Amino acid sequence: MKEYVVGVDLGGTKILTAIADLEGNILARVRKDTEAQKGKDAVIQKIKDTIYEVVEKVDLDLSQVKGIGLGVPGPVNIKEGSIKHTPNLDLDNVNIVEELKDLGIAVFLENDANAAALGEKWFGAGKEAENMIYVTISTGIGGGIIINKEIFHGAGDAAGEIGHMTILPDSEIKCGCGNYGCWEAIASGTALSRMGREAVEAGEETLIGDLVTDSSEINGEVIAKAFEKDDKLAKEILDRLASYIGIGMANLINIFNPDTIVVGGGVSYSWSLIEDGVTSEINKRAMSSLTNNVEVVLAELGSDVGVLGAVATALSEVKLEI
Amino acid sequence: MKEYVVGVDLGGTKILTAIADLEGNILARVRKDTEAQKGKDAVIQKIKDTIYEVVEKVDLDLSQVKGIGLGVPGPVNIKEGSIKHTPNLDLDNVNIVEELKDLGIAVFLENDANAAALGEKWFGAGKEAENMIYVTISTGIGGGIIINKEIFHGAGDAAGEIGHMTILPDSEIKCGCGNYGCWEAIASGTALSRMGREAVEAGEETLIGDLVTDSSEINGEVIAKAFEKDDKLAKEILDRLASYIGIGMANLINIFNPDTIVVGGGVSYSWSLIEDGVTSEINKRAMSSLTNNVEVVLAELGSDVGVLGAVATALSEVKLEI
Repeated sequence: MKEYVVGVDLGGTKILTAIADLEGNILARVRKDTEAQKGKDAVIQKIKDTIYEVVEKVDLDLSQVKGIGLGVPGPVNIKEGSIKHTPNLDLDNVNIVEELKDLGIAVFLENDANAAALGEKWFGAGKEAENMIYVTISTGIGGGIIINKEIFHGAGDAAGEIGHMTILPDSEIKCGCGNYGCWEAIASGTALSRMGREAVEAGEETLIGDLVTDSSEINGEVIAKAFEKDDKLAKEILDRLASYIGIGMANLINIFNPDTIVVGGGVSYSWSLIEDGVTSEINKRAMSSLTNNVEVVLAELGSDVGVLGAVATALSEVKLEI
Repeated sequence: MKEYVVGVDLGGTKILTAIADLEGNILARVRKDTEAQKGKDAVIQKIKDTIYEVVEKVDLDLSQVKGIGLGVPGPVNIKEGSIKHTPNLDLDNVNIVEELKDLGIAVFLENDANAAALGEKWFGAGKEAENMIYVTISTGIGGGIIINKEIFHGAGDAAGEIGHMTILPDSEIKCGCGNYGCWEAIASGTALSRMGREAVEAGEETLIGDLVTDSSEINGEVIAKAFEKDDKLAKEILDRLASYIGIGMANLINIFNPDTIVVGGGVSYSWSLIEDGVTSEINKRAMSSLTNNVEVVLAELGSDVGVLGAVATALSEVKLEI
């Protein structure tokens, strides 16, 4: 009897579930609103419903599902099978693997950044990678570390907090984590918006302010638009962002000697505006024996990365080679 | 017939060789001057001589040696068995494993920082560690990364260049690697001496200058002496060093979520002067969920770390549990 895996991408607003064969071909998908406000039990039931539905959609029996990968937005305890904390879901300290036990299928838990890394490794830009860092740059900066084709979890399943590397120790820019000068505080989408906003509010000469009705609307898209209109300050801001992104990447290259860095998240849509700056900073700061052997590539899965990452989590746990 | 391993610590000035049983008990040692000026062939012959001698010393036969660990001061290509570069030896691009083939014993090559990490893991401060970073702070800063009890080599056997993390991107302090503001440039023993020298040369109020006849003699020991005499500036300099060391360690903790950081090298002798500063910087900058689960401990092997590291390299390659 042919065997399959299911991936569940549990998000604060939606649950995306897919079923795949062991070659990694996606056969069907289901999408439901999470409705987190209905509470823990309702969310758990909804996860189960998406699994039943997706299996039914392809006329299979639940017994043919060999494993379920579950990606959650927050830190997890993999050995216990529990969620430590999720910002938008009522699932803190819930043993989700235990809660899904009545499905009778092995459930493999992973945080969403690690699942995304696995997704890019199995289905996306990292297919050939053995030692890969997945860097996702959006409102924050997250990461997943793949060593010898597997996620490196660290001693307490919390490895990969690359966004909290200190890059500017003397900076006054406070990070959400409480520290100052973290990579995420100075090189994320949020940081880009902040640089634009501060320039406009300081009255610097730029088109950025003309493109919005209020400085609170300034974001990466607006700054990119100003850049396309040859705005000098927009270029300066993007160069600074590129430089900060490059410093963090150079650090990761010097530390890990990876073969591949995959860049995902919102910043990938403006990659062409910063790629040269990032590369030049990497070449300035990472050792040439290492930069010669690493490829920095864009993520390929876009908004699919969550659910494909969950599928990849299941696939890699059942230790099958596509 | 009982089996053994040999470890060879090849240094620029001396070769230290030891033989151990598979439980890791050191049975005998041999030490010879490298006499690097005599050239490649003489050095290779001398390596062999130390191996013959150490085996003879315990009345064993070469055939009882199951593996030889060889630690070299510089980057290596483990798959090929070759040395990429050594600063003080005429062995660049030499396939040392091939050169030692006539011994008829498997030779396992490792760079000295990784070998030292393995030494501390098998014989020293990291015995209980599974995910450990060995940080050696002397004239430079080097490292060895242990993941799941084994050295992580990276894609090109060059992982662990932690000393070249950029910590102060805007710094004008140039590192030997060509980059500015590397961890090694600002937080090593060399950096400590430089801070002391610069303060004295700038005419700042301090005893440091009184303890030497020329400012070029200022080093960590002198600064520590001034500190013990309640010199305020010496304390400031040591605090700055501690803070820089702590920033780099916090980054490693956030990235790796290690269970143990082992601190070796010359700085370990002044550890009591900086430990509080290092710890406080780590707590400021690393995530508390991670700092709660990591132990920062001093290396235990001292000047033995090289040869014991070479023995550990052989032991861990023959995949035996002590």
